[in-house]
Amino acid sequence: MLNIRLAAEADSDAIWNIFYEIVAAGDTYAFDPGISREEALAYWFRANTHTYIAENDRHVVGTYILRANQPGPGSHVANAAYMVAEDARGLGVGRKMAEHSLSEARRLGFRAMQFNFVVSTNASAIDLWQQLGFKIVGTLPGAFRHPRAGYVDVYVMFRSLL
Amino acid sequence: MLNIRLAAEADSDAIWNIFYEIVAAGDTYAFDPGISREEALAYWFRANTHTYIAENDRHVVGTYILRANQPGPGSHVANAAYMVAEDARGLGVGRKMAEHSLSEARRLGFRAMQFNFVVSTNASAIDLWQQLGFKIVGTLPGAFRHPRAGYVDVYVMFRSLL
Repeated sequence: MLNIRLAAEADSDAIWNIFYEIVAAGDTYAFDPGISREEALAYWFRANTHTYIAENDRHVVGTYILRANQPGPGSHVANAAYMVAEDARGLGVGRKMAEHSLSEARRLGFRAMQFNFVVSTNASAIDLWQQLGFKIVGTLPGAFRHPRAGYVDVYVMFRSLL
Repeated sequence: MLNIRLAAEADSDAIWNIFYEIVAAGDTYAFDPGISREEALAYWFRANTHTYIAENDRHVVGTYILRANQPGPGSHVANAAYMVAEDARGLGVGRKMAEHSLSEARRLGFRAMQFNFVVSTNASAIDLWQQLGFKIVGTLPGAFRHPRAGYVDVYVMFRSLL
């Protein structure tokens, strides 16, 4: 049974392990692959950000963040980012975190959710977002340098929560 | 004669005056209108950001920032933001800063430039970006709460520098 809850400081090691694995692979997120543990955790737990973990039998298998995508007159649109541990892929953890984040975003009063940077080669993520009602509303030509595919497009995805 | 140069700490007052005026109007930028001088300057001079001012006879009439839009595998795309003092509008200051920024972005090795959040009611800015070769590559529905027009669309604009 997957349990999703707000992250605590005691989850830092588990979060960093997942974060490091994903950023080192370098094929889905625009983080500096040399980012330090301290910088990564500062980003993941930064101010005005809700940080969650998904755990299976007290083993952390995923983490996500939820926040306003812009301040002030743009703060009614949420943004989220999700990471699933490599050894927990294909078990529906990403989908459950995404559904949880949509529910949390509604609860927090957001009117919409936006993903700013979905790498076009990340087919399973795009498929999942589309199943959850997100649409591609923008295409950034060659905006991601993929370790094997070279410069590839990036999508902006969006869905209303109203 | 307009002169554009890197900003120094001595330009802080002039930059804050322009920043405050624009953010208080609340119709073009998604900043918290209650942002403090300290927060605004920390943002405008933050790490990995090039900060410039445009001066006319040693009077600062505009300012802009230039930086990578994303870290790591997204760092070849630049992002910029421009602000022109209200009493210097219509004099071509925005255009000259934009041309300067494109030249600087090329010099710094960026392959493209992206604006993440162009409010669709900001017709003069959109017109200028299009004249300078930017295209609308995305539309974020209702992503900006305009003080008079209500929720309005926001554009993502992009141009190659190759």
